[in-house]
Amino acid sequence: MKPPAPLSPPHRVLMGPGPSDVDPRVLAALAQPTIGHLDPAFIVVMEQVRSMLQAVFGTANQLTIPMSGTGSAGMEAAMVNLVEPGDRVLVGVNGVFGGRLCAVAERAGGEVVQVQADWGRALDPDAFRVAAAGRAVKVVALVHAETSTGVLQDLRGFREVADDVGALLLVDAVTSLGGCAVDLDAHGVDAAYSGTQKCLSCPPGLAPLSVSARAVQALSTRRRPAVSWYLDLALIARYWLGTEESGGTARAYHHTAPINMIYGLHEALRLVLEEGLEARFARHRRISSAFAAGLQAMDLVLPVPAAERLPQLTLVAVPQGIDEARVRADLLAEHSLEIGGGLGAFAGRAWRIGLMGAGCTEGNARLCLSALRGAHARQGLALPDPLPAFVAALGG
Amino acid sequence: MKPPAPLSPPHRVLMGPGPSDVDPRVLAALAQPTIGHLDPAFIVVMEQVRSMLQAVFGTANQLTIPMSGTGSAGMEAAMVNLVEPGDRVLVGVNGVFGGRLCAVAERAGGEVVQVQADWGRALDPDAFRVAAAGRAVKVVALVHAETSTGVLQDLRGFREVADDVGALLLVDAVTSLGGCAVDLDAHGVDAAYSGTQKCLSCPPGLAPLSVSARAVQALSTRRRPAVSWYLDLALIARYWLGTEESGGTARAYHHTAPINMIYGLHEALRLVLEEGLEARFARHRRISSAFAAGLQAMDLVLPVPAAERLPQLTLVAVPQGIDEARVRADLLAEHSLEIGGGLGAFAGRAWRIGLMGAGCTEGNARLCLSALRGAHARQGLALPDPLPAFVAALGG
Repeated sequence: MKPPAPLSPPHRVLMGPGPSDVDPRVLAALAQPTIGHLDPAFIVVMEQVRSMLQAVFGTANQLTIPMSGTGSAGMEAAMVNLVEPGDRVLVGVNGVFGGRLCAVAERAGGEVVQVQADWGRALDPDAFRVAAAGRAVKVVALVHAETSTGVLQDLRGFREVADDVGALLLVDAVTSLGGCAVDLDAHGVDAAYSGTQKCLSCPPGLAPLSVSARAVQALSTRRRPAVSWYLDLALIARYWLGTEESGGTARAYHHTAPINMIYGLHEALRLVLEEGLEARFARHRRISSAFAAGLQAMDLVLPVPAAERLPQLTLVAVPQGIDEARVRADLLAEHSLEIGGGLGAFAGRAWRIGLMGAGCTEGNARLCLSALRGAHARQGLALPDPLPAFVAALGG
Repeated sequence: MKPPAPLSPPHRVLMGPGPSDVDPRVLAALAQPTIGHLDPAFIVVMEQVRSMLQAVFGTANQLTIPMSGTGSAGMEAAMVNLVEPGDRVLVGVNGVFGGRLCAVAERAGGEVVQVQADWGRALDPDAFRVAAAGRAVKVVALVHAETSTGVLQDLRGFREVADDVGALLLVDAVTSLGGCAVDLDAHGVDAAYSGTQKCLSCPPGLAPLSVSARAVQALSTRRRPAVSWYLDLALIARYWLGTEESGGTARAYHHTAPINMIYGLHEALRLVLEEGLEARFARHRRISSAFAAGLQAMDLVLPVPAAERLPQLTLVAVPQGIDEARVRADLLAEHSLEIGGGLGAFAGRAWRIGLMGAGCTEGNARLCLSALRGAHARQGLALPDPLPAFVAALGG
C-alpha cells in the first residue's frame, strides 16, 4: 500500500482531563537517540528517574519506578500485585476511577466492598471502618484526585483506617502527582501509582508507581504469582533495583523498557524539580483559584465544594439549554483549545477543565475563560465578563 | 532535591536483539506536539496506523492495533483474551519466548502442554498433534521468530494442526514483523502480536496486535471477563474501532492512548511501506546472509542450521577460551556497538547479533565483523579476515 502523508498534528492547548500540554524540552528529550535497556548509560537514567520520582512522590520507597504502560496499567499493577483471589478489598467510590479500581480488583480475584460517597464529594474514612464490619481486609483503596469529578481527597486518617482493619493502603495519584502534595510516607501509603500525562506534563505512556517496604514484603509471601506476568513487581524489581543474588549490581532482563518515554519522563521530572515542589503546588492553587473565581463571575456553577476542589481539574456544570458538545467543538475549532466532557454521573452535564503542569498558566486560564464566554454567546447565552474577578483573585 | 544534569545518551549502533537503530524521522515524529486521545486529528492517525499495520501483518483483520505496552504486553494481551481458566493451551517451546508464553498462559489460568524442540531448532507441527492427544485444545501458540535463538519458524501446517484440535492459532511475531513476511491471513493465524523495537525500528513501548474475526467471536463468548482490565480487547476495541451502538463512529474512552509513541509508530510504518515489504525483506536476507558468510569465514560457528536461520537475528557461538562479556564490553567501549548475550540454554555460550530494520545495513554488518575480529584479537585469538567472503556474498 501507499503510505499516508507524514504526520502533522495540530498545536492544541490541552485543558482537558489529560493529556496536558507538554513542555518542548520534554518533546525534545523523547527524540534523543534510543539506547539499549541494559546499556550502562541507561542504568544511570533509570537511577535518576527513580530518585526524582521518590522526591515527587514524597517517599523513600526503593521500589519507585515507572511501569511500562499508561496510568491505568499502574492501577492494574498495584492491584494485581497486592490482591490474591479471595482477598477482601475496600474501595472508595465517588467517581469513575473508584469504579475502575473495583473492576480491576474483581478481575484479580478480589472480593470488593464498595465504600461510596456522592460523585463530586470526598470520601469519609469512618465509612471504611463501617464497611469492613470487623472482617479481615487485604487492601484499602481510594483515589487521591478523582479525574472524573475534580475532587481532592484528604488522605489524613486513612493510614489509621488501614491499620484498624489490618490492610495495605493503596492510593490512585494519577491526577495529583506533580500538581499537589502526595507525600506517600507522611500518609503511610503502601502503594500508589500515577500517569505521566497529567501534572507531570509528559506524554501518556508510563505509570509512575511506588510501593512501600511493607507491601514488598506482602508480595514475597503471596500464595501464587500475580495474574499478570507483564506487571509482576517481583520480576520487574529485578530489572529496576538489580537482582538480590548480585546485591543489586546486576540487572535481570524482564521486558524491554520503553527507553524514549523514560527519556521524556526524565526531562519532565527535571522540570518539576527545577521549579520546586512547593512553588509548583502554589502555582496550581493560585491559577486555579483565580480561574474558579472567573468561572463563578460568569455565573457558572462549580459542583464541587471549594474545600474539596482539586486545583488541577475543575468541574463546571453545563448551564440549562446549552449544548455541551457544541461548546467543546467550538473551543476546538475557534481556539484549538481542548476541554473535557463529563464522565459517568456527569456525562453531558459538566465539563472538566484541566490546569495541569506546563498547562497551568495565567494565559491558558484567561484564554479558556474568554473562549467559554464566546461559545456561550454563540448559543445565545450572554455571560458576565469573567476577567475582572479573575485578575482580582490572581492579585490577591 | 536538585535535579540531575540533562540527558545526553550516547549514540550507539544497536545490533543486539532489540531495541534496534531508530531512523531519525521516527525520533522526530515522537517529538510532534501531543494532542488528545479523542481529538479528531488523532482519530485520523489511529486509522492510518491500523491500515498500515494490516498491510505489514498481511491481514484484513479489523482489530489490528497497537497495544499500550511493550511486546511482552502484546503477548499477555493475546493470551489473557483468548484463554480462560481451565482452557488447554499447546505451546511450542524452543527458546525463552516459548517459555514465556507458557508462564503467561498459566497465570491466565490455562492448562499448558509444552511441545518442545531443541533450542536453536524449529518446531514440528506433528508434535503438536501428538501432544494434543485427542483432547480439546483452546489455543495453539508458537513463536515465529525466536529472539533467544535466532530461529525462524515456518508457519505452514499450523493452521491445519489448530483445525485438527479445534483451537485458535496464536503467533508471536515480535522479531519477525517488518523483517520477514508474516502473512497472517495466508497462514490462518487468529492472533499475533509484535513489538515496535525490532524490525519496525521504532523505540520500544507499543505492541502491534492483530486478532481474526474468529478470535473476536471467541472473545464475545467468554464465560467471564479477561483477568486483565488494561488489556481487555473487548473494551479496547470500543476505542480503536468505535462503539457498536454508534456503528463505529463514536470512540469510547478506555485508557489514555500513548499519543507520541503512536506518532513514532506511524512514521516507522510509513518508512516500511515506502521501502516496500518485499524490498525490505530482501534487504534483510541479502545483508544477513553476507554477514553469516563473513562470520563463518572467521571460523565462527552459527548454531542454527541455515534453513532455519532468522535473517534479522544471528546466533553466534562463543569460541573456546573467549570471555563473551568482555567482547561485548569491548565493542561498546571501542565502537559504541551493542550486541546481545545469549539467553537461557545459550547464556554465556553465544552472542545474539541483530540486523533489524533501519540497522540492517551493509555498513553495520561490516563494522560488526571487523569489530568482532578486533575484540577476539585483544583476547589473543587471531581470526581470518571476514571481509572478502562478506563482499563476495553481497555481490552474489
